[in-house]
Amino acid sequence: MAERNLYLTNTPLPEARKLYLEALAPLLHLEEEEIAVIDSLDRITSRAVYARYCSPLFTAAAMDGIAVSSARTAPARETAPLTLARGADFQAVDTGDPIRPPFDAVIMAEDVAVLDEERVEIIASAAAWQHVRPIGEDIVAGEMLLPSKHRLRPMDVGVLLSGGITRLAVYRRPRVAIIPTGSEIIEPEQEPGPGQIIESNSRMFAGLVKEAGGLPHRLDIVPDDRQLLKEAISQAVDSHDLTIVNAGSSAGTEDYTAAILKELGRVLVHGVAVKPGKPVILAIIDGKPVIGLPGYPASAYLDFQELTLPVMALLTGRPAEDSSREVEAVIAKRLVSSVKYQEFVRVKTGLVDGRLVAAPLARGAGAAMSLVRADGFCVIPQDSEGVEAGDKVSLRLYRAWQEVENTLVAVGSHDLILDELADRMSAAFPGCYLSSTHVGSLAGLMALKRGEAHLAPTHLLDEESGEYNISYLRQLFEEPMALIKGVERIQGLMVQKSNPLAIAGVADLARCRYVNRQRGAGTRVLLDYLLKQAGVDPASIDGYGREAATHMAVAAAVVNGEADAGMGVLTAARAMDLDFLPIGPEEYDFALPQRFLELPLVRRFLTLLRGEAFRRRLTELGGYAWPRCGEILYL
Amino acid sequence: MAERNLYLTNTPLPEARKLYLEALAPLLHLEEEEIAVIDSLDRITSRAVYARYCSPLFTAAAMDGIAVSSARTAPARETAPLTLARGADFQAVDTGDPIRPPFDAVIMAEDVAVLDEERVEIIASAAAWQHVRPIGEDIVAGEMLLPSKHRLRPMDVGVLLSGGITRLAVYRRPRVAIIPTGSEIIEPEQEPGPGQIIESNSRMFAGLVKEAGGLPHRLDIVPDDRQLLKEAISQAVDSHDLTIVNAGSSAGTEDYTAAILKELGRVLVHGVAVKPGKPVILAIIDGKPVIGLPGYPASAYLDFQELTLPVMALLTGRPAEDSSREVEAVIAKRLVSSVKYQEFVRVKTGLVDGRLVAAPLARGAGAAMSLVRADGFCVIPQDSEGVEAGDKVSLRLYRAWQEVENTLVAVGSHDLILDELADRMSAAFPGCYLSSTHVGSLAGLMALKRGEAHLAPTHLLDEESGEYNISYLRQLFEEPMALIKGVERIQGLMVQKSNPLAIAGVADLARCRYVNRQRGAGTRVLLDYLLKQAGVDPASIDGYGREAATHMAVAAAVVNGEADAGMGVLTAARAMDLDFLPIGPEEYDFALPQRFLELPLVRRFLTLLRGEAFRRRLTELGGYAWPRCGEILYL
Repeated sequence: MAERNLYLTNTPLPEARKLYLEALAPLLHLEEEEIAVIDSLDRITSRAVYARYCSPLFTAAAMDGIAVSSARTAPARETAPLTLARGADFQAVDTGDPIRPPFDAVIMAEDVAVLDEERVEIIASAAAWQHVRPIGEDIVAGEMLLPSKHRLRPMDVGVLLSGGITRLAVYRRPRVAIIPTGSEIIEPEQEPGPGQIIESNSRMFAGLVKEAGGLPHRLDIVPDDRQLLKEAISQAVDSHDLTIVNAGSSAGTEDYTAAILKELGRVLVHGVAVKPGKPVILAIIDGKPVIGLPGYPASAYLDFQELTLPVMALLTGRPAEDSSREVEAVIAKRLVSSVKYQEFVRVKTGLVDGRLVAAPLARGAGAAMSLVRADGFCVIPQDSEGVEAGDKVSLRLYRAWQEVENTLVAVGSHDLILDELADRMSAAFPGCYLSSTHVGSLAGLMALKRGEAHLAPTHLLDEESGEYNISYLRQLFEEPMALIKGVERIQGLMVQKSNPLAIAGVADLARCRYVNRQRGAGTRVLLDYLLKQAGVDPASIDGYGREAATHMAVAAAVVNGEADAGMGVLTAARAMDLDFLPIGPEEYDFALPQRFLELPLVRRFLTLLRGEAFRRRLTELGGYAWPRCGEILYL
Repeated sequence: MAERNLYLTNTPLPEARKLYLEALAPLLHLEEEEIAVIDSLDRITSRAVYARYCSPLFTAAAMDGIAVSSARTAPARETAPLTLARGADFQAVDTGDPIRPPFDAVIMAEDVAVLDEERVEIIASAAAWQHVRPIGEDIVAGEMLLPSKHRLRPMDVGVLLSGGITRLAVYRRPRVAIIPTGSEIIEPEQEPGPGQIIESNSRMFAGLVKEAGGLPHRLDIVPDDRQLLKEAISQAVDSHDLTIVNAGSSAGTEDYTAAILKELGRVLVHGVAVKPGKPVILAIIDGKPVIGLPGYPASAYLDFQELTLPVMALLTGRPAEDSSREVEAVIAKRLVSSVKYQEFVRVKTGLVDGRLVAAPLARGAGAAMSLVRADGFCVIPQDSEGVEAGDKVSLRLYRAWQEVENTLVAVGSHDLILDELADRMSAAFPGCYLSSTHVGSLAGLMALKRGEAHLAPTHLLDEESGEYNISYLRQLFEEPMALIKGVERIQGLMVQKSNPLAIAGVADLARCRYVNRQRGAGTRVLLDYLLKQAGVDPASIDGYGREAATHMAVAAAVVNGEADAGMGVLTAARAMDLDFLPIGPEEYDFALPQRFLELPLVRRFLTLLRGEAFRRRLTELGGYAWPRCGEILYL
């Protein structure tokens, strides 16, 4: 058997899930354990729980006043007050005090006239059982308090105790082994050497397992050694209910996982028609689930959600919860998708003019930050070739609707101050958010025009007038626009420390390796303007076609020797400890329709822009001036 | 000063909250602590976190294949294959391997022809940076990974580690003291004596504090001793960030809490215009919040949600989350409300015929089970006198919408088998639910007619025909109805153990204290029928007007000596260890419109009714026969 040649299948996701769960269902038996009710929060009842006591345990006064026998009070009326004697006719009670026969009603204190220590007078009769809480009003002994498979909440704990229950049967939490593998993988505390990768997936899995009601157990990293890995998996399966093996699930020359799982048990699925997340392995060893998850974080996350969580549900007795909401949104960008795969595209969302807009984030399997930034997933079915910008799509929204409603959506050019403003927004106005998607200045204005953003950060130079932004807004928009003046920032060339190639300006770019920004980026417009002025042909620049999406990405390419120079802002050069050749200040502003100026979120944004705290932070960052920050131009 | 005469104010809830939070805000300062990233799940960042490393840390192959210099491959075409030499021209790479200059592109393995150990041939050029993941593609060193006040999720932990962060600053979790008070209160492990109450609120608070991100610390029960209570509160305030005193917050003779809090600090609010939850105390001692919560569980829960959670938000740095959704529902019952109070009515909900219907639950402050059963709250504003049945109301829904959609709504007569069927429903069909509201047979049919239920459990005797249910359905409904036959159950008189009053039948009820069922209950219809046959005048029966809502509540009243006899089913008598005088079997069925028969939830309900497991459970319970269980009559 040619075990070395592992070809991945392309099983549709729902089919893979069904196959695996149906194979596992008869093998898995939930085990019970008895625990104290006071420790039972979030656990799952393994059987229905019945009350031992009534609550209240006795018939009790529901008001402060006197307990009486209703029959005895019958003659009392305003014209014929009735005098009652302590003991024989009444008893003083506070709320909650027991009411015992012959007393069967309570008269409120304010309706009682005290004659002396031993006698009171009433002027109305009491109906039987008035202001009395009968025994068992809330809980009757023998009544079912909670059904089986119920997740315990704080109020459940209270009710169980009231009903006389102090211990209860719950499902044992499944033990989940998580095995990180790979010789290139190091622990986060270690300093990474060349070619080494910090292990982080296992800790993400541990969190997901915990949230799903399991007990994660992260084992040591196993290097790419077939025998060691086989032993590690074997041992993990022995002492755990579910084993997750991370990476080695693809078909590279060092991907042993599938072959080992085949030797130890049965591999039911290897390769699922989903993107990201194709190289997943669903196996059963000794009657227990063993799942090989891919190494790329976005793939691993998706396969955890779609294939591991349902197994966790079988092991915990919890329903396979999905905290997402299915909502309809307008997609902000064309998405081309292969008919070979069902695709899960991470998106940021915002509510602009009453429409829920979804902006796709980085689609790469390795884009872990897109998981952090995402508000949800847009699922493109396997049989679809994609969607066009403006199409309605179905969205799995993970963020609370309240948060989406309170998010100011910025789409456009990237600057570090956007992250800082986002941070200040939620700090200064709890529950309010600023979300920014980085597509470049021009694309941001187009998004604004299509109604997909509240504002567009932009720094577009008009080559004719030498003025920033204004002419673009006048040309592109029909409705009255406003420009909120932002910052002046120093653009320049970022070069290696000490400038070894002695680059002095854009004229020198032809003799070095350059890293450019994407088309439509204001920085690129500026470069083109400067090249034209200097008479340099862009085609003569090595790397003119290599595009990076942000200032920081440009800086990173230079600091790591991938390129010799790139254009960007001083703050990026400083953050990466690069030399910086200033070219000049440019105006980084915020464009928006005038009618948005009165939105509370925009008002808050203006408050931040104009605030002292923001200016202090600009000073700290360096490279900015703010002569007109927060000023509004009406165009 | 007359400190003993405490009169509660009636401050509107929003006003009370604003007053308290504004007084607290300048006093509370969030403290930071540094913790390991791997222990940070669910904690809140106290400052923005910036990446230490890029991710990927180096430019890497995104495919299995060979790394090449794109410039070197330029001449390759199908008509002019290019031979590349290992080392000088190419290097074999697996996905994730580093790509170093002069190599700047990857050609996939399937596009490479291997000539021998040292040489390969290609027939197309490679574009620069194709199939290459550039350094920092996901994370750029210096980039903001997470803003401040961010709650850490599993993917955040992964990204932090990838970005080289192993420790981070978070807000310290607030320590919350919970002091249960009252001489009548006992610990749950103790056997309650006369007049004693099991302490359960503190454990509910502990769960709520934990969920809100605090560290609950439940202190020992303090009896009603002014000095002891004062000392306990003083000590708690010293060592905690928030102190909750439970009960003693009203104005009874033993309610010391407010007076003590006044002595120790400032009482800002005592009494809020909300129902349940009026007697709450908002105080500040030594610059720290101290909250007196009422003793009734529903009041305490509501005041926790509305007044304590916002304080927790100040102490944790979390936004005051509300997991509820505001939805519109049709109210199933008239609700009269006082203009003196804003009222929070607990409701059960269901989706019937596409309409979200809300059925009010017990409104009493002591009804803890109504918290357990509730799907949400319907808020009646302070200036409203209530709502009419069928009115649209705004609902705060706490259950997931998915669960609401998968709930079969039964409204009508109560029987223990409904709880058992509900338990089986979610056990046999994970994610499916049966909800039952107990209003009696006739009210259930009326709810069904108004479109507020899927089915109505009913046992209504037609006095003329002696037949159950059918004639009622024919008279009340115009649309084609179905009757799913349920069980025959033994109705009878429940009397004290050994039947001390020697009650032999309904004729003897005139000489004992009776506890009746509410109007419209099938059991009451049966009693009236039997009384008429026996020639007994209902007015001659002591307690005919005392109404209990369920069989079990009737049984409880008898077992505790509140009444000598009540009518109900054998199972209830047995559960409470009462003697039982059988009167005869009655037919307990389920009415529904024929068009509902094809609903998946109804099909599942039928599967349960017809299943062996349910019949075994009926045998265990006793008192039932099921000759036609699951049969459908079309009317």
